[in-house]
Amino acid sequence: TEIRTAVAHMFEQGPLAGVRAVVTAGPTREPIDPVRVITNRSSGKQGYAVAQALSALGASVTLVSGPTALATPPGVQRVDIETAQDMLQASLTAAAQSDIFVGTAAVADYRPAQAEMQKIKKKDAEMSLPLERTTDVLKAVREKYPVLFMVGFAAETEKLAEHAQGKLQNKKLDLIAANLVGNGRAFDREDNALHLFWPGGDQELAPASKTALARELAQVIASRYRSKVGI
Amino acid sequence: TEIRTAVAHMFEQGPLAGVRAVVTAGPTREPIDPVRVITNRSSGKQGYAVAQALSALGASVTLVSGPTALATPPGVQRVDIETAQDMLQASLTAAAQSDIFVGTAAVADYRPAQAEMQKIKKKDAEMSLPLERTTDVLKAVREKYPVLFMVGFAAETEKLAEHAQGKLQNKKLDLIAANLVGNGRAFDREDNALHLFWPGGDQELAPASKTALARELAQVIASRYRSKVGI
Repeated sequence: TEIRTAVAHMFEQGPLAGVRAVVTAGPTREPIDPVRVITNRSSGKQGYAVAQALSALGASVTLVSGPTALATPPGVQRVDIETAQDMLQASLTAAAQSDIFVGTAAVADYRPAQAEMQKIKKKDAEMSLPLERTTDVLKAVREKYPVLFMVGFAAETEKLAEHAQGKLQNKKLDLIAANLVGNGRAFDREDNALHLFWPGGDQELAPASKTALARELAQVIASRYRSKVGI
Repeated sequence: TEIRTAVAHMFEQGPLAGVRAVVTAGPTREPIDPVRVITNRSSGKQGYAVAQALSALGASVTLVSGPTALATPPGVQRVDIETAQDMLQASLTAAAQSDIFVGTAAVADYRPAQAEMQKIKKKDAEMSLPLERTTDVLKAVREKYPVLFMVGFAAETEKLAEHAQGKLQNKKLDLIAANLVGNGRAFDREDNALHLFWPGGDQELAPASKTALARELAQVIASRYRSKVGI
């Protein structure tokens, strides 16, 4: 009876009760000057939905978010950032207190090598903007926290499985959720489709709303996390 | 009595009754590849407020809008665009049917010389992004419509009066509304301050909400438009 009560209690609280998760979401903005930025089409919707779904499974969730027009899901703690460098710092800080890290953010790979202090005035018909690589957030988090359960996202315009499996291995992730983007797919839309890959397996989640997909993904995360840590 | 009735009737309808206005608003987005874009911090709030204020004065308003998170003001007709080139086409089309043109949009001055068809994969630590000038929307509209009443905006990080008066002359505008941006001013905020310049005069509008400023600006536009066309 005691065991039955304990199990019932656990399921009341959800399979991720007592588990701390970080979700990164949205785009980053890399300043060219005080007015202009390089950014991307990420709306943050998928990441916010994942944060909400993990919270619904009982996890204590911190959402590290780039600029979006979205409301913070109830019960989720939100940290706002702007640049890839901000995202790196906030992610490393939040990961220190966490069991699960889900990187859905579309972090800039390149930023202007120098952000101008004043608005650049128009001059030449052509110019060239020098860019430099940003630090890879997932790689940096993995290096610092080797046993953290890490989930990545791969937004690709082609060769989905190949790029996703490359990222999974290269960044030593526990799970990666891949989706096709561009040409009206995924970005700024309510629906999406995900192909999940983990070391030794994969699963396709059929096209559905980002909210429904987030619930399915959260279930897979919970199940693979619990099997990894042996609970 | 007839005159008194006509005047009363005019003021019931508003000083811009029967007048057609175009307002451009928001940022543009210039694709680097299907995912990445160059854009700017314009929220579109000031432009949407101007569209609403002109409509409240009786004008029939078309709002040509870049990507924003804002709702269309009631009674205003909205045309959505994405790039500077889209903005140019939509502005020229809308201006053909108009008496007043108010350019509040933060149109990109430069776009990537070539938008890649597939997502650019990370490679080198540094790279250079070739940019080319976009067509100046206000200049193009002025060239095609020499007698249109044209209002520009100047968002500057320094030398406000100098840059604004330069634009007023250079683009042959009837009025320009200048504001300081950057370092937490104007962009993504609800309040703003505007300094208006026209050939031979200027007027400062004290810091206020963007809505309140838009109402004041609309009154100045109405008064200067009516004086120009002699009604």
